[in-house]
Parts: sequence; C-alpha cells; structure tokens
Amino acid sequence: MTKVLFVLFPGVTQLDFTGPAQVLSRLHGASTFVAAKTLDPVATDSGFAILPNVTFADAEQADILCVPGGHGVAEALGDAETIEFIASQASGAKWVTSVCTGAFLLGRAGLLEGKRATTHWAYAHLLPLVGATHAAGRVVEDGHTITAGGVTAGIDFALTLVAREAGQDHAEAVQLSLEYDPAPPFAAGNPASAGPARTDMLKQRVYDAAAARMAAALSAGQ
Amino acid sequence: MTKVLFVLFPGVTQLDFTGPAQVLSRLHGASTFVAAKTLDPVATDSGFAILPNVTFADAEQADILCVPGGHGVAEALGDAETIEFIASQASGAKWVTSVCTGAFLLGRAGLLEGKRATTHWAYAHLLPLVGATHAAGRVVEDGHTITAGGVTAGIDFALTLVAREAGQDHAEAVQLSLEYDPAPPFAAGNPASAGPARTDMLKQRVYDAAAARMAAALSAGQ
Repeated sequence: MTKVLFVLFPGVTQLDFTGPAQVLSRLHGASTFVAAKTLDPVATDSGFAILPNVTFADAEQADILCVPGGHGVAEALGDAETIEFIASQASGAKWVTSVCTGAFLLGRAGLLEGKRATTHWAYAHLLPLVGATHAAGRVVEDGHTITAGGVTAGIDFALTLVAREAGQDHAEAVQLSLEYDPAPPFAAGNPASAGPARTDMLKQRVYDAAAARMAAALSAGQ
Repeated sequence: MTKVLFVLFPGVTQLDFTGPAQVLSRLHGASTFVAAKTLDPVATDSGFAILPNVTFADAEQADILCVPGGHGVAEALGDAETIEFIASQASGAKWVTSVCTGAFLLGRAGLLEGKRATTHWAYAHLLPLVGATHAAGRVVEDGHTITAGGVTAGIDFALTLVAREAGQDHAEAVQLSLEYDPAPPFAAGNPASAGPARTDMLKQRVYDAAAARMAAALSAGQ
C-alpha cells in the first residue's frame, strides 16, 4: 500500500489539496490520509469544511507527503506542531511535495534548503527566504522533492508523481479517467499570458499584501 | 450576492465539485452553499469527507445550481429527495449546471429534455435516456443550462460561467489567481488522444460496468 498523506490547516486553498487527492486516490494501491491537528472540520478558503481522517499524533509514516498552500499558510508557519509534523513525516517519506504556497511550509521545516523549487507565481520571489532557488516550470523536481506552482498546478504535479510511482501507462489511464484534457476558455493562467496590466492589478488588489504577510511570517521566529 | 449551490451525495467524485467551487468562490459577491440531505459529513470517492453547510430543507433559492457526478450518481438517481431538491432549485435558478455524470441527475429531474448536453466521455451515449442530445465540447451551453465533461472539465466550465456572470476580465483575473495554465505531462485526456487500446482497457476495467449500472438506474422507476 502506498500511503499518501495531505497536511491540512485552516485557510487551506482547497483545490491545492483536492486536485492532487483526486489524482492520487486513483494511484493503484494508494490510501489517502488527510491529517490535521485534530479531527475537527478544517475550514477551507471556499466556504466549506473538510473532515480530516487522522490527527498528526496518530498518522503513520507516509510514502508521499503533500503539503497544500493557501492564505492560511502565513499563520501555519508559526505553528510549531504543524511544522514539526511536516519535518518528521518528511524524514521518512519517499516523496516530499507541495502545491502552491505549501512550499513555504516545507521550507520552514528545513526541507527546501539548497533546492530548486516553485510555488504560486505571486510568491516565487520569496523562495530564497527558505533557502530555495526558484526554478521555471509548473512542476519542479529536485531529487525526491517535488514542488508545484499555484493551485491548479497540483493536478499536473500529481499526474507526474503517478508516473514516477507506477509508470506512464498508469498515469495516462488516470488522466483519461479524469478526462484531463484541459481547455481553458481564456489565456490568462500566468503573468506572461495575462500581461502586466492584469497582473499588476491583481497584485495590488490581493498579492502584494499577501506576499508581505508571508514574508513577515517567514522572517518571524527565524 | 450570488448564491452558488452545490448538491452533494455519497460517492461524489469530489473534484467535480471542488474544482468549480474553487473557481466560483472567487466570483465577486458569490457565496458558496454545499447542500446535502443532512449536515452529516458526505463521503467522497477520494478517501475523505466533506461537511455540507446547509440541508436540502433549509437551502435558500440558488442563483447558480451545480450538480457534480461520481459513482454515487447511480444510487442518487433513485433518491426522490435529492431529485426533487434539484428540480425545485432548478425552477428558480438563473443557471442550471452539472459536471461529469451529474448530468444524469439533472436529466432525472427532467432538466435536459430536448437539450444539447455533455457528461463524462464514458457515459455520453446514455444522454438520450434523459432526453438530451450529446454535443461535442468540454463545456456545453444550451440556454441557461450548462453541462461539463468529465471531472476536470468542471474548472473550464466554472471559468466560462464566471465570464457569463461577471465578464471576461473578471474570469481572467480568477484564472490568473489560480495559475490555471494547465500543462498535462501526457496527452491522454480524452479517448481520441489516449487511443483505442488504452480507452478500451479502461472501459473493460471500469466504465463498461459503471455505464451499465447507470443505464439500469436510469431505466428503473421511469
């Protein structure tokens, strides 16, 4: 059995987790563990809560550790129990992975030091704060550490990981089962295609402040 | 406020719901309602449960009704309370939508009669059983009824709907915030790209039986 373990915290961007969970739950022989500090429902960013199925204290050693991101990361960075759990699981995991700003939780746990990594585009400039170098690409592999870009990159990451674990044939069967033949109605999925005007507007409205909060949280308690 | 309401049932394919929920929760002025028969956790297909935030009985009239799919659809088709709730909400909703095999729940509620629609590729041949004509495309619009293809098509659908509701500019900002610039590692997302050998293998392993169960459920109680 391949134990896939996701780390949840309040304010998680749920698709960072639910996208890979959908893909990896179809990895042959995989079991999905959704771990949090307690078994209480975890509030997501999308107006609903997810129920963990194991506590940090009771979680077995995972084969695949996956840490999603979200606005809640800035707070989770200051939570010793969450960071220690990530560090402890990572020490015995075959794959240590993150989606979106989950990279900074890996980083706070000391897991990105000297590594090439990625995260959501609006936070990529902060990767050096955890000792990582930002690498181009939606899915960045550095040894057994895999980091994915923002939110929806988690689906591409998870298919990549299924191929690493079980071969491309199996990954393609999972892809077909999920009809993952994306056709975005618009071409605005990254700053280059969206253009500077739209990107700057979104930064002003959301991400300048959010990245500043993240930088402050990364600096605190160093 | 735009009320976005998702209908949950046991055995839902969670990404059918969580993908659109991630996108639509970023529609300006939107509130997300996740409705089920009771407030008990709803088991998904991915090894974890989602907590509804409203019961069918207490749900207000939605502006956007969205019905996800999953292996649980075959059972939900026989559940009068679920079907009546969908029919009742649809009668007052601005948009009536489905992802994946959620189309058959719309269909059982009488909402696809005479309409062009789509669903997961492995079930498309069953659309005439609910009076619909299968139309090509990952997102099919017929008046205020929008149906999406399998699982991941829900993300494309939801961005399309954000554009209909709030304009392309807003949809592109949401797309950029979710870094939705998909780069599938393989080209196997539909039967044409996956090829007949892989498609037939998956049908034999999963979908021939699943489609037969769906057809039987659609025939029962007609």
